[in-house]
Amino acid sequence: MMFRAMAAAVIGSAFRKSRGLWLPGLSAVRAMSAQAGPTPPFSALSVSHPATAVTHVELYRPEKRNAMNQAFWSEMVDCFSQIALDSECRVVIVSGAGKIFTSGIDLMDMAENMLQPEGDDVARMSWNMRRLVAKFQETFSIIEKCPKPVVVAVHGACVGGGVDLITACDIRLCTQDAWFQVKEVDIGLAADVGTLQRLPKVIGSRSLVNELALTARKLYSDEAKSCGLVSRVFPDKESMMAGALELAAEIAARSPVAVQGTKINLVYSRDHSVSESLDYMATWNMSMLQTQDLVKSAQAAMEKKSPKEVLFSKL
Amino acid sequence: MMFRAMAAAVIGSAFRKSRGLWLPGLSAVRAMSAQAGPTPPFSALSVSHPATAVTHVELYRPEKRNAMNQAFWSEMVDCFSQIALDSECRVVIVSGAGKIFTSGIDLMDMAENMLQPEGDDVARMSWNMRRLVAKFQETFSIIEKCPKPVVVAVHGACVGGGVDLITACDIRLCTQDAWFQVKEVDIGLAADVGTLQRLPKVIGSRSLVNELALTARKLYSDEAKSCGLVSRVFPDKESMMAGALELAAEIAARSPVAVQGTKINLVYSRDHSVSESLDYMATWNMSMLQTQDLVKSAQAAMEKKSPKEVLFSKL
Amino acid sequence: MMFRAMAAAVIGSAFRKSRGLWLPGLSAVRAMSAQAGPTPPFSALSVSHPATAVTHVELYRPEKRNAMNQAFWSEMVDCFSQIALDSECRVVIVSGAGKIFTSGIDLMDMAENMLQPEGDDVARMSWNMRRLVAKFQETFSIIEKCPKPVVVAVHGACVGGGVDLITACDIRLCTQDAWFQVKEVDIGLAADVGTLQRLPKVIGSRSLVNELALTARKLYSDEAKSCGLVSRVFPDKESMMAGALELAAEIAARSPVAVQGTKINLVYSRDHSVSESLDYMATWNMSMLQTQDLVKSAQAAMEKKSPKEVLFSKL
Amino acid sequence: MMFRAMAAAVIGSAFRKSRGLWLPGLSAVRAMSAQAGPTPPFSALSVSHPATAVTHVELYRPEKRNAMNQAFWSEMVDCFSQIALDSECRVVIVSGAGKIFTSGIDLMDMAENMLQPEGDDVARMSWNMRRLVAKFQETFSIIEKCPKPVVVAVHGACVGGGVDLITACDIRLCTQDAWFQVKEVDIGLAADVGTLQRLPKVIGSRSLVNELALTARKLYSDEAKSCGLVSRVFPDKESMMAGALELAAEIAARSPVAVQGTKINLVYSRDHSVSESLDYMATWNMSMLQTQDLVKSAQAAMEKKSPKEVLFSKL
Amino acid sequence: MMFRAMAAAVIGSAFRKSRGLWLPGLSAVRAMSAQAGPTPPFSALSVSHPATAVTHVELYRPEKRNAMNQAFWSEMVDCFSQIALDSECRVVIVSGAGKIFTSGIDLMDMAENMLQPEGDDVARMSWNMRRLVAKFQETFSIIEKCPKPVVVAVHGACVGGGVDLITACDIRLCTQDAWFQVKEVDIGLAADVGTLQRLPKVIGSRSLVNELALTARKLYSDEAKSCGLVSRVFPDKESMMAGALELAAEIAARSPVAVQGTKINLVYSRDHSVSESLDYMATWNMSMLQTQDLVKSAQAAMEKKSPKEVLFSKL
Amino acid sequence: MMFRAMAAAVIGSAFRKSRGLWLPGLSAVRAMSAQAGPTPPFSALSVSHPATAVTHVELYRPEKRNAMNQAFWSEMVDCFSQIALDSECRVVIVSGAGKIFTSGIDLMDMAENMLQPEGDDVARMSWNMRRLVAKFQETFSIIEKCPKPVVVAVHGACVGGGVDLITACDIRLCTQDAWFQVKEVDIGLAADVGTLQRLPKVIGSRSLVNELALTARKLYSDEAKSCGLVSRVFPDKESMMAGALELAAEIAARSPVAVQGTKINLVYSRDHSVSESLDYMATWNMSMLQTQDLVKSAQAAMEKKSPKEVLFSKL
Repeated sequence: MMFRAMAAAVIGSAFRKSRGLWLPGLSAVRAMSAQAGPTPPFSALSVSHPATAVTHVELYRPEKRNAMNQAFWSEMVDCFSQIALDSECRVVIVSGAGKIFTSGIDLMDMAENMLQPEGDDVARMSWNMRRLVAKFQETFSIIEKCPKPVVVAVHGACVGGGVDLITACDIRLCTQDAWFQVKEVDIGLAADVGTLQRLPKVIGSRSLVNELALTARKLYSDEAKSCGLVSRVFPDKESMMAGALELAAEIAARSPVAVQGTKINLVYSRDHSVSESLDYMATWNMSMLQTQDLVKSAQAAMEKKSPKEVLFSKL
Repeated sequence: MMFRAMAAAVIGSAFRKSRGLWLPGLSAVRAMSAQAGPTPPFSALSVSHPATAVTHVELYRPEKRNAMNQAFWSEMVDCFSQIALDSECRVVIVSGAGKIFTSGIDLMDMAENMLQPEGDDVARMSWNMRRLVAKFQETFSIIEKCPKPVVVAVHGACVGGGVDLITACDIRLCTQDAWFQVKEVDIGLAADVGTLQRLPKVIGSRSLVNELALTARKLYSDEAKSCGLVSRVFPDKESMMAGALELAAEIAARSPVAVQGTKINLVYSRDHSVSESLDYMATWNMSMLQTQDLVKSAQAAMEKKSPKEVLFSKL
Repeated sequence: MMFRAMAAAVIGSAFRKSRGLWLPGLSAVRAMSAQAGPTPPFSALSVSHPATAVTHVELYRPEKRNAMNQAFWSEMVDCFSQIALDSECRVVIVSGAGKIFTSGIDLMDMAENMLQPEGDDVARMSWNMRRLVAKFQETFSIIEKCPKPVVVAVHGACVGGGVDLITACDIRLCTQDAWFQVKEVDIGLAADVGTLQRLPKVIGSRSLVNELALTARKLYSDEAKSCGLVSRVFPDKESMMAGALELAAEIAARSPVAVQGTKINLVYSRDHSVSESLDYMATWNMSMLQTQDLVKSAQAAMEKKSPKEVLFSKL
Repeated sequence: MMFRAMAAAVIGSAFRKSRGLWLPGLSAVRAMSAQAGPTPPFSALSVSHPATAVTHVELYRPEKRNAMNQAFWSEMVDCFSQIALDSECRVVIVSGAGKIFTSGIDLMDMAENMLQPEGDDVARMSWNMRRLVAKFQETFSIIEKCPKPVVVAVHGACVGGGVDLITACDIRLCTQDAWFQVKEVDIGLAADVGTLQRLPKVIGSRSLVNELALTARKLYSDEAKSCGLVSRVFPDKESMMAGALELAAEIAARSPVAVQGTKINLVYSRDHSVSESLDYMATWNMSMLQTQDLVKSAQAAMEKKSPKEVLFSKL
Repeated sequence: MMFRAMAAAVIGSAFRKSRGLWLPGLSAVRAMSAQAGPTPPFSALSVSHPATAVTHVELYRPEKRNAMNQAFWSEMVDCFSQIALDSECRVVIVSGAGKIFTSGIDLMDMAENMLQPEGDDVARMSWNMRRLVAKFQETFSIIEKCPKPVVVAVHGACVGGGVDLITACDIRLCTQDAWFQVKEVDIGLAADVGTLQRLPKVIGSRSLVNELALTARKLYSDEAKSCGLVSRVFPDKESMMAGALELAAEIAARSPVAVQGTKINLVYSRDHSVSESLDYMATWNMSMLQTQDLVKSAQAAMEKKSPKEVLFSKL
Repeated sequence: MMFRAMAAAVIGSAFRKSRGLWLPGLSAVRAMSAQAGPTPPFSALSVSHPATAVTHVELYRPEKRNAMNQAFWSEMVDCFSQIALDSECRVVIVSGAGKIFTSGIDLMDMAENMLQPEGDDVARMSWNMRRLVAKFQETFSIIEKCPKPVVVAVHGACVGGGVDLITACDIRLCTQDAWFQVKEVDIGLAADVGTLQRLPKVIGSRSLVNELALTARKLYSDEAKSCGLVSRVFPDKESMMAGALELAAEIAARSPVAVQGTKINLVYSRDHSVSESLDYMATWNMSMLQTQDLVKSAQAAMEKKSPKEVLFSKL
């Protein structure tokens, strides 16, 4: 709430007159929700660049409620592998085209794989199944391994695999009408592509995590906000996309050395003790502090300039 | 098989007229709070089966405010060891008989052990004390090792050992008049049967955890809800027990392969890094996905049936 | 809220008539905010003892908004090393003198170190930079290693290094007008003295942590309370200092064996699995339960006395 | 070699004249190899006490080459659970009756369990199989959890499950004619009751471990000695049993507080980092150093007496 | 020694009359050392199949002493990624063409990358350097991730990157004239593609590891054998290749479910505690024990047949 | 710079005529064993510089068989803290003055601390004891934290605390007449300053480790060599000191960036999984590879020069 006011004020002044880089105008937001279709070579994703240094990845199978089909699983890996290496990109927004974010796994398309694993005996079918699950897991872990922060914007439903996806993102936003459902238990399996691993580290109530995972009940936006799953709720998709773009622009405006180092170390510290994480951090920053970005930023700070007025090299 | 029969019966009566929930009838709830006494061979616990596939474990020393005496500590282990192996049981509810959930450790009964450890010198007394503490710890760890989800329903006071107990359960509910107290510091010791180890992983505010553990102040139900210790607050014990039973029925209706695999992997992921937990999950599911439950559930999902209409084999 | 009422009641009755030890009177609170200057040999800290067994460490460079200069970094280590060994002290309060808690690192004073690392080549400059960062990290880790609980009371701004500092404390309080800012990304670096390592383990919303660290936006007191960063918000600094003193007195009144064992095991369990932490706890308590404090406290409990009426030996 | 000389010398002097406690005479050794049969209630184990404070556990199915049948797996747990609590016992010797140490798992007896797991589908059969494997694992982990040191003496063949067993013991001895075989790969499975987990931590050549586990080739006594699997090789079973008894007597003669604390901390340090293990050790010894054994032993040392002349309390 | 005798005996009998699968005849060995050149699309590797189910990967830049150039680093990843998925392959042999195994990194070819990292400032050059090192590390980690066992056969020199490579293999063999050198310290860097991480876990003397890594002294074959780096030494390359092939044939003849499960669990247990590794093993084998290979192998064992006479399905 | 001068001088004299080693002259070795006494401010240590960039730390209480008294424990910390920061020093040799390396802890001097811990009750005595043990542990951990490699040269006896000390060093040498004894169990305690934590990670036979720690038997030099505790055995102290100096000179001649980075990463990898260690290594080397040392060394390598001819900056 207060952030949006502040952001609005900033946009109203410094942003507009600057070199056009950081301002996500209304047209950009509209462009975001007016994609014509998937971006080749992708068939389930639409990738665009609504503002400088911002990449927008849209789940794009609106007619199938963005259900995750076989193409989706491999395209995500290709897409985020490219983004990880794209020095033009500093931040990513993920959202869904059409009426909802995603209905989760496309059971029709995937059933063959899931229900009829290959192999001459149980061991061999298990072996192939494990490889398959590991491949699916990688689809979302790739988001975490990408050093650029990923903001995910959810509207309508976010079901099953959708929860696996969003818990691997860095910042979660949603609309008032959004709801989340750890659906897997309803189709007879324990969620295995990330939800059970990441959700408990993403929100602060273990009782709630267990309840969601064991009963498949829906979590609505207000509870999603109060439990910390999302950090902001917007009245509708348009305002959410505008908010996501503002937020992305805030991040994109800062030193990529600082931003990406922050993400990498935040992911590291989730999985290590504080003392191990401090050691890693010191080893990381022993070189990263020698960046010109620090000199430029410190100088700007002393001159009371915004970091947005600083020009940083690519990373 | 028996579950199906039960489910049909239940659905045929109370359930249908309610708001679509798998509603356990009022009589079941009343039965829960009308136990006649401990269930032999137990002297401090009363075990019943208020609904098919649901086991109810009641702390049953109401005249002693369910204080945890020597019998309690060993009976819990026996009780949950049996439940772990009971293929008729798919979910457990824990609550307390009488006016409060529990006043914690029974100082009178336990003082002998705690205050007069055996042994010829400090080392030997310490050795025996460590064995004793480890035994007490196992009393609650057994809840966590039991693969069936455990819902705990707290009314009135939940003090000292009570907090150790509930943090080892999976889902926590309470009444409006409930309060929680990490009492140990008041009797001169650091809480050593689970609270200091599990509470910080159960709620999201470390400042609050520290405050509770260092000052022994009471935490009332509203704050317990907002900090995530409990996921739901009910107006009184009767409505809470009905709610617990509904929740338990929701869980019991689902595939036990999915439900118990979910619990085991949620406990695992709490104590491991995300990548280790994903690896374990894939290794777990390589066989568990070959369950018939998945086929049945997926089919039901495609036919728009509820998972509750599916009949699952015992586990 | 309820705690303060309770605390007030307690103060109104048992506290006043006791041996004067535990009552932090108004004069004590006033004294806390009326320091004349830094306490030699310190130049950036003012250390006092507003109540028995309570040590107050005040950041004392009000004219510089308590910016963290070179002296500060080494004085903190000296100060907390002494406190760790001071058997008169059972609890610590940290606050800031003047208008705000702290503006973070003193860029003017530190720039030389940070921007011009010594060394003949990149490797050697990195080597020296790593040593420097490790030294800064130790400044706040020393708070965590000190076995006495540390309550931090924040008013006004808490920026950059200030967030690193408070996340290493045990209990966080703030005033209504307080705000927090993970500022580092704005000056071109990933926060490297604790924030990225501790903040995610201190509050329950990872989305919020990421947002704060990646955008450097301000977090105001209401959100700080709802996300669990602070456990209480006070209308102004005076009431906060009174509250901090009450809280400190509560802690100081309890067995130091229990209190310090609690802190040590809470820090341990943050960084280890539950089963490892239980094992450590049992090994810890095998001797600590042989304290006279347990006998005294248990006896007091049976006699319905407050632990505050018990006299404990020094630790 | 040098140890035996030393031990012999010691036996020749101080030992014989002492209170008879520590000298394992020839009769004791003979008694060890002349058991009449299993000791009730055991059917696969023979338990005796060849010297004071020494317990001898003999695999006793000589006519079946000590193959591990169903009875064996559960009797080991019962046996070592008792030993762990038996304050008369300070050290354990494990050996095999008859012509060889053990031929490993009794395929005939176990096949039913292993080859026909119960369950209605793959998931349920897997579930039951996992429980079974975990139970088998516990059979040998119980040796590790027993705080008394366990010396294992191997003659002839030690195959399959035998290797799992001996790697869970503390000290390994063998005869010249002994050989070891990680047999599991030959019967179509990865060794799952400890060999793959413990063998690499027991010997120093990973290339050798891999070769043994992947080819099921035999490892003869000379190579077993040079790679460190055993610490001593004896010409025949009689001399080995005498050696084992001497070694056991050495251990039994020392402070049980020191000996058992040593075992517990050695097992701990295998699985933790050095700094974690040091922390655990300090927490362990903070009480254990207050033992009277230390005073007695230090005094004896100053008086140039052997620790064997010191009388220690039971533990 | 004894193994070769045994292997020879086996080859002399059962092997020859079998379906020709398992016998690596002399011609196969000769074929191994008579490659005509790299196998397209590879330019630095020659891949062949000297016996059924055995893949031979030869470092093939003999004129450059098999120095590791840019092509090598990426071809290894491609090669082992294919092998991991090739169900025809059950075991891999790695060796070097020409006079020595490898002289390590090709300084001429790599200098550009190593000495002139791209980037506008130190941070950006470091960023790119880290990515490069990680890529090089993956080159050898891919060997470890490949579930098929890898036998490496070293003749002549094995320098620098060569040591990184062989420590990621499972079984190490060498010729009498082989020597090993951790060369990196001589060219001004700490070895960063695996030696410092794996060597200490591969051999049993930490003093020796440190000496080798800190002085770059040569380790000759006899010391390599006695310290456990290699498990066998052969008089010359031809006999070593014959031995490697025999060993590979032994492994290839066994159940791939057993063999590959063994490798995966051995790698897992290196990096986890014993209790974690046991848990993982039980979860792995709950399905893998349901393999037909177990039935076939157990039956063969009861009929006193060799596992080599059993026909296993592909994996 | 100064190192270059030194190196030139050394090379110009004694070195060239030897077998190509960087041979420190006989006079240097004699100087090492002819100290006049402890070096102020130390009373139990003698510190000298027998060759450029080499620091020699001698345990210097020959009349007390270098028993470790109170002064020793704190002087070690001071001494190695200085060495860690001394850019003139690149490698350290530790040895003992007089007839033996060390007889271990000075029972007479230490008994007061160990046997009479301060404190009003068991808990408080334990508290103080833990602090004391932690302080003793730090005495040897400081060796490990010092980034300069430490070579320890043992002659005669190395008993009790001596084993704790040498296992914290990097390279271990000994004389033919040396013996080692984990003595603690003989005086009634589990070794608590490092032996139980480091010895199992230093040598490759766990059976041997357990035997040594549980029986306090002596380990003579030949077995110390074969089990890997020491990497070289010398006929007498004079030749050992010459060997230590040669070895130290080898290390001192190499890039300190490479050498110290190697030590730090070797210590790191002991306590972490391979994948964690590789990640740390890449993060370490992303800056360290930008050293001028690499350019200089690579150039020298191409010109077939020895690294000893290269002049490196201080670190």
